[in-house]
Amino acid sequence: MCPDSAKNYPVPSVRRLPLYLRLLRQLNAQDRKSVSCTHIAEHLGLGTVQVRKDLAMTGIVGRPKIGYPVPGLIGAIESFLGWKDATAALLVGVGSLGSAILGYQDFRSHGLDIVAAFDMDPARVGQIVHGKQVLPLSQLAQRAAETHARIGIVTVPAAAAQDVTNQLIGAGVRAIWNFSPATLEVPAQIIIENVRFVDSLAVLSQRLHQLEPSDSP
Amino acid sequence: MCPDSAKNYPVPSVRRLPLYLRLLRQLNAQDRKSVSCTHIAEHLGLGTVQVRKDLAMTGIVGRPKIGYPVPGLIGAIESFLGWKDATAALLVGVGSLGSAILGYQDFRSHGLDIVAAFDMDPARVGQIVHGKQVLPLSQLAQRAAETHARIGIVTVPAAAAQDVTNQLIGAGVRAIWNFSPATLEVPAQIIIENVRFVDSLAVLSQRLHQLEPSDSP
Repeated sequence: MCPDSAKNYPVPSVRRLPLYLRLLRQLNAQDRKSVSCTHIAEHLGLGTVQVRKDLAMTGIVGRPKIGYPVPGLIGAIESFLGWKDATAALLVGVGSLGSAILGYQDFRSHGLDIVAAFDMDPARVGQIVHGKQVLPLSQLAQRAAETHARIGIVTVPAAAAQDVTNQLIGAGVRAIWNFSPATLEVPAQIIIENVRFVDSLAVLSQRLHQLEPSDSP
Repeated sequence: MCPDSAKNYPVPSVRRLPLYLRLLRQLNAQDRKSVSCTHIAEHLGLGTVQVRKDLAMTGIVGRPKIGYPVPGLIGAIESFLGWKDATAALLVGVGSLGSAILGYQDFRSHGLDIVAAFDMDPARVGQIVHGKQVLPLSQLAQRAAETHARIGIVTVPAAAAQDVTNQLIGAGVRAIWNFSPATLEVPAQIIIENVRFVDSLAVLSQRLHQLEPSDSP
């Protein structure tokens, strides 16, 4: 049952886990007790081998003719991702993207609790954005210590991103979730995950270009 | 030189192409004429086999002792992704996330031109956001026809996302770039690419949980 803690799991497989979780939570809300690999695969447009392999990461293996236990699999995915309890996060940069992230309702059910938001702009400090008062960066270290925040969310422009990242790491966060287009340098023990819109755009563009090579309508 | 147009390229490889492009554009700005696979791999923290395989998708193969021609490889990646010319896109939903997307400077150099922005909220219609006047949804079909927009960007809340997607497809877009958490249904010939923040969060959370299984500081 216990996944190997030293293993490097394939990123595409880990990225698919929220997709399974969403479906499983829907099934659970409908009081479904078990679900087959085939059902999951068909519903999500994936291959059964892929689904079995992805879910095996969590330590749960489906049983022939019965499938996966729905509540058990939800628990296993949540445990695997560390989503059983929400992890405290600090967000820096309450511009339009930072405001969007602050207002995103789904994060709480995905293990993330943004406990404080900061900005460098004096005009933004003190404002209430999605129920959070925007704090000055000078309070970062103190709030990090008080909240035991382990994740720093970077939603500042590229030019400010490295400095903000350094301050977040200095304040004790262990992971940086970078929404800026900047390529950030972090010490080896710090986890960094970049949300790069252009990576997703590349996938869309390549498919579109393959389908319709000409730009003419 | 010509990539196989019927092929399904691996999504993780396509997602990495903007990373290569960023580095290559930097090297080109420094007037570097060629670059080795090893240099690219080391600079980006990837394996050389992976880099060679990813770049081979574009039809360019590095030469022993010389490497890749920098301008040639930039051109090959841009051609492969359809980024030689910008593709027109319409954005629907000018809330905080939509505003952030509208203001994102990097898209133009990644083949995307957001030509018009729309919102359902009468209070937002008519406002200027990052130089674009917000239009009512009633003008969607007309503007789509005038601009030959092929991409629809969905930045509305989940509850409105399917309806907006249907309208965009009805207006003639061929691809949907979905930033809402909704799972959208589209006809088979329509390309859909979802930007799901929680997928990225899963990767970050899993690594953090693996590093520090306990939530205690």
